Amino acid sequence: CVRVCVCVCVCVCVCVCVCVCVCVCTIGWFAKPTNPNNANHSASNKYLREKFTRLPHLAGTEQNLRYAEQIKKEWLEFGLDSVEMVPYDVLLSYPNKSQPNYISILDQLGNEVFKTSLAEPVPEGYEDVSDIVPPYSAFSAKGQPEGELVYVNYGRTEDFFQLEREMGINATGKIVIVRYGKIFRGNKVKNAVLAGAKGIIMFSDPADYWAAGVQPYPEGWNLPGGGAQRGNVLNLNGAGDPLTPGYPAKEYTYRFSLEDGVGLPKIPVHPIGFHDAIHLLKKVRMNIHTNNQVTRIYNVIGRIRGALEPDRYVILGGHRDAWVFGGIDPMSGAAVVHETVRSAGRQLSKGWRPRRTVIFASWDAEEFGLLGSTEWAEDNAKVLQERAVAYINADSAIEGMYTLRVDCTPSLHTLVYDLTKQIVSPEEGEEGVSLYESWHKKDNWTNDRDAPRISKLGSGSDFEAYFIRLGIAAGRARYTKNKKTERYSSYPVYHSVYETFEIVEKYYDPSFKRLRAVAQVRGGLIFLLADSQLLPLDVIQYADSLRKYAHSIAQLAQRHPEEMRIYEVSFDSLFSAVENFTVTASDFHQRLQTLNRVRVMNDQLMYLERAFIDPLGLPGRPFYRHVIFAPSSHNKYAGESFPGIYDALFDIENSADPQESWEEVKRQISIAAFTVHAAAMTLTPPA
Amino acid sequence: CVRVCVCVCVCVCVCVCVCVCVCVCTIGWFAKPTNPNNANHSASNKYLREKFTRLPHLAGTEQNLRYAEQIKKEWLEFGLDSVEMVPYDVLLSYPNKSQPNYISILDQLGNEVFKTSLAEPVPEGYEDVSDIVPPYSAFSAKGQPEGELVYVNYGRTEDFFQLEREMGINATGKIVIVRYGKIFRGNKVKNAVLAGAKGIIMFSDPADYWAAGVQPYPEGWNLPGGGAQRGNVLNLNGAGDPLTPGYPAKEYTYRFSLEDGVGLPKIPVHPIGFHDAIHLLKKVRMNIHTNNQVTRIYNVIGRIRGALEPDRYVILGGHRDAWVFGGIDPMSGAAVVHETVRSAGRQLSKGWRPRRTVIFASWDAEEFGLLGSTEWAEDNAKVLQERAVAYINADSAIEGMYTLRVDCTPSLHTLVYDLTKQIVSPEEGEEGVSLYESWHKKDNWTNDRDAPRISKLGSGSDFEAYFIRLGIAAGRARYTKNKKTERYSSYPVYHSVYETFEIVEKYYDPSFKRLRAVAQVRGGLIFLLADSQLLPLDVIQYADSLRKYAHSIAQLAQRHPEEMRIYEVSFDSLFSAVENFTVTASDFHQRLQTLNRVRVMNDQLMYLERAFIDPLGLPGRPFYRHVIFAPSSHNKYAGESFPGIYDALFDIENSADPQESWEEVKRQISIAAFTVHAAAMTLTPPA
Repeated sequence: CVRVCVCVCVCVCVCVCVCVCVCVCTIGWFAKPTNPNNANHSASNKYLREKFTRLPHLAGTEQNLRYAEQIKKEWLEFGLDSVEMVPYDVLLSYPNKSQPNYISILDQLGNEVFKTSLAEPVPEGYEDVSDIVPPYSAFSAKGQPEGELVYVNYGRTEDFFQLEREMGINATGKIVIVRYGKIFRGNKVKNAVLAGAKGIIMFSDPADYWAAGVQPYPEGWNLPGGGAQRGNVLNLNGAGDPLTPGYPAKEYTYRFSLEDGVGLPKIPVHPIGFHDAIHLLKKVRMNIHTNNQVTRIYNVIGRIRGALEPDRYVILGGHRDAWVFGGIDPMSGAAVVHETVRSAGRQLSKGWRPRRTVIFASWDAEEFGLLGSTEWAEDNAKVLQERAVAYINADSAIEGMYTLRVDCTPSLHTLVYDLTKQIVSPEEGEEGVSLYESWHKKDNWTNDRDAPRISKLGSGSDFEAYFIRLGIAAGRARYTKNKKTERYSSYPVYHSVYETFEIVEKYYDPSFKRLRAVAQVRGGLIFLLADSQLLPLDVIQYADSLRKYAHSIAQLAQRHPEEMRIYEVSFDSLFSAVENFTVTASDFHQRLQTLNRVRVMNDQLMYLERAFIDPLGLPGRPFYRHVIFAPSSHNKYAGESFPGIYDALFDIENSADPQESWEEVKRQISIAAFTVHAAAMTLTPPA
Repeated sequence: CVRVCVCVCVCVCVCVCVCVCVCVCTIGWFAKPTNPNNANHSASNKYLREKFTRLPHLAGTEQNLRYAEQIKKEWLEFGLDSVEMVPYDVLLSYPNKSQPNYISILDQLGNEVFKTSLAEPVPEGYEDVSDIVPPYSAFSAKGQPEGELVYVNYGRTEDFFQLEREMGINATGKIVIVRYGKIFRGNKVKNAVLAGAKGIIMFSDPADYWAAGVQPYPEGWNLPGGGAQRGNVLNLNGAGDPLTPGYPAKEYTYRFSLEDGVGLPKIPVHPIGFHDAIHLLKKVRMNIHTNNQVTRIYNVIGRIRGALEPDRYVILGGHRDAWVFGGIDPMSGAAVVHETVRSAGRQLSKGWRPRRTVIFASWDAEEFGLLGSTEWAEDNAKVLQERAVAYINADSAIEGMYTLRVDCTPSLHTLVYDLTKQIVSPEEGEEGVSLYESWHKKDNWTNDRDAPRISKLGSGSDFEAYFIRLGIAAGRARYTKNKKTERYSSYPVYHSVYETFEIVEKYYDPSFKRLRAVAQVRGGLIFLLADSQLLPLDVIQYADSLRKYAHSIAQLAQRHPEEMRIYEVSFDSLFSAVENFTVTASDFHQRLQTLNRVRVMNDQLMYLERAFIDPLGLPGRPFYRHVIFAPSSHNKYAGESFPGIYDALFDIENSADPQESWEEVKRQISIAAFTVHAAAMTLTPPA
């Protein structure tokens, strides 16, 4: 029994190893943690801080290109077979340096009597850093609208409904102010536009961005009152670069004009901190001068050639660009990729080589709408469609100090559970406890089964094009907060200047064991997917999830039993398709046991996720093509199952023509049933 | 050296064999014709006539179901591993039996003073046959429009332009009459609708449907004056069933209403023969009562499981439904499929089994818009996308007595040439001459190279969904007329009641050697594609064709040198992409010589055609997704290369906004360049 050990190390500061050991003489993999401690802590720490989080590296800037070059150089040194820089020219958006953005309060004569801050107070130790982009909403329209201010809570669909229906307030022609949180900011902006607002201000409310008993940074990890959340406010729905939807943004690519670009908001948008928010009165002026410009970005793509199946790809990708320093977002994740490459290189030098090709990606311009990853997916769509086995995402490795969080396709559930049982808990006082046990104890999936919760993939990070557009099995893992007690989305200093290396080192993960655990999960998934003879994808689990989703969407429809009768709406065809899928998946699983024709069956496993793709896309969202999963139309971050049916049901409530709306529900049920049948067909014996 | 012989026999009347012999000890195949004559001629003749051409078997009728059941039964007897009947419920269209369709001439009081015939004179020997559907335009709108009659030649785009621009005649509110020929009848109807006509009559002009010196049937093979051409008048653009575009028409499938159906003409349409056409005067009334109705149709699908690569499919498909007897269309082709199955079964019983899975299909409702084949493609899209190697079409095997006609994807050119060199010419006096030589002599591809002409695939038969929508390498072959001397489209009796078995036996192919040659080509392609270790697809040839098409489309644009300068239109990116493809294809071809990793390289060969598919489809034609080939927007029968660019250039001439139109040309060039680059990428080493 030959054992090949691959060490996955976290590079934010310490070198931590996961040993993923393959038993060549048996089928299957075992992940074993070793070396929980490492002597080199502070040297490595200093070194890496110098490397990747000392300077702002916004997408499209010189510094972010330098980091890309450095990563390329090091990945080659680590021993990858090839590393290339892949540029695209995409639409980015920056504040105008000579005309800052701000919100003002006007007196009756039109004089500015108050102006919001032009920048966040810079944290200690970074005072001399230049090129810190001030808080802004990327891709905001330019403009200086003045008007009455209307508060719309979180700016959710239901918040606007409540404003209009219960409170009788019309947002048309107003400037709306909403607090950050609950949903993706782009959805807030879309809702404001639909409501007729002429501008939208977003602020960080301490009710949402302030943990009880915690001091603001640098005394603690809360967001200071002068801090604000940057972020893009696009509604791309998976299009990638707004000017080249569907195609990679290369030199020769045709670009739409800005007017025809995808997802660009038509009104000015601006984010502010709480200290500014409390000053805002009934009437304000927004002063927004942000510029859109086509800018070169750079992905770094590294490869290890597969020994036996070079034409099967397992991808580990995460972004490199940051709003400012990126101490958490994304460098805690980029470090995982970097150290996984280092470990893989070390094993390569000892003679190991994975069965399948592994691709490592350092994406650019994720913050501007997942642009680097989406353009590369568009560029390589044909090849990926035929050859990609799985995509594992590596954005921020940490957003809290509580437990593991995993979002993935159902076929990866079993692998995640098996793997986390082999990893030790990073929590103090849990020596000898597995990550699985620790996670299970803290976040049990009580409604469904006695196992740790795994959620549906939504969007908001670079897996989107791979999973939702191309149908490649995908997953992500990170360390998270206790969502029962911590209300804020993400974490308090998210997308502010206070996301430093120090906030991780001082508060989030002083021992760096949590980051190690996340690295062990991400790295373990990659290596098991790349090196197992039989692909570790579980079709039975997909069947179980489909059944659960089908019942849940049918229940939603059952809120309207009378209309379902009148319009003859039935979910029987969907239940029947799911039942058929379940039987077929079970037969397939049986046949797997014989391990006959491994390549044929691996192809069936690989292509199962692809079978859920409808080339016609979801209604109005041509690049969201997965019939089972899509980002919610009301919140990009959340995953919705059977999104076509869900959206049709949602529209019922607000429809002028209920018959037409129910017809759309029926059409979507039919598409879902067909797709599940078609997916089952891919699991039957091929001839 | 073990030899496995597969005999492909034509069943219209004689049993003719192609021996396709595989040399297991060498790479490659040799096709050798044997048994040119067969003693059983007249018995088999009688038998098969009784079987498949004695009775009308229109799609959706009881008789066409009976033939399907018979085919299933026989394919099982022949020894296929499985045969299934696959039903769909699609929209068909039939005349109203109690209210016949006709055209009348009215006097000034509105009395009918002339009525066109309600049926064709039935040929001798078929007098007692019932259920002969009268000539009609399937899917015509109902209605009884009256109005002035305007003659618009062939009803082509240019004919309507000439009418309006040069002759100053406006067709709005008129009934137009056009002659059959030159383009697909559905395009004529579309043009009439666009011109504002309220009805359209199509007639068979002797100038187009009358061969010089030939008598009308039964004394010869010309169309009698009382004969008329049936046919559907849809503009489906690849949608399949008009009510379920994109999805198979199953029990649970959502159906659009007739108003929302795809491609249904909004005006009455009717076909007449020449004897009626000469009577029509200035003013007429159309009386059209044809009904659309959802009707069950049946495909028959048979399979031979591949011995080594069961998950790779080679498909031979042709339709079974006929407007009346189908003596030529389609039974001369269906016979080829039937006898290929018989021969394959015979070889299976001797222990032979092809490397890959072979699928045989008897499609239904081709005449109503390629419905059976398209629904099956929709039903099986996922599996076909991952597994289909090639699709060979088997519609009418003969449309003339002159030479071979082949339309196929460029990657099949070399295989077609190699194969036809191994087949003997069926022509009298050409003993010892190969089919290739005979064909080359009669139809040299003078503009391009010294080889027999091979044309681009257009549409008009069942390969469409496989090639244009799914991107599966495809081809078709038949015996054809001398197009320099014979003006008619198809053949004179096309889609009339005179398409009998006897017209083939007496005039088109008395020795049945031409049909045998066609069977040898179709069967040879199937067996070589299914059994060669290395797929016989030629990437170099694809590169050559791309270069030719790129130059030709650039030349078309060069008609507007001034505007190209003003709007900065350049084809450089396309030329550069083609150049890159050429180099990559050549490198790939080099690597093929080592025959290393055959499965990996075969997958690259198989997926090359798929790489030309754009999931976003062509503008306004979502189901035409092949960027290199599409049916012409002006004539469905003709294949257009770089159709996106072509259509954009065509629109220039008629555009109100030239800048916008040239922007669209630039966008289409960019898509073409990207697609060719992406296709080249699939041919590079996978890692």
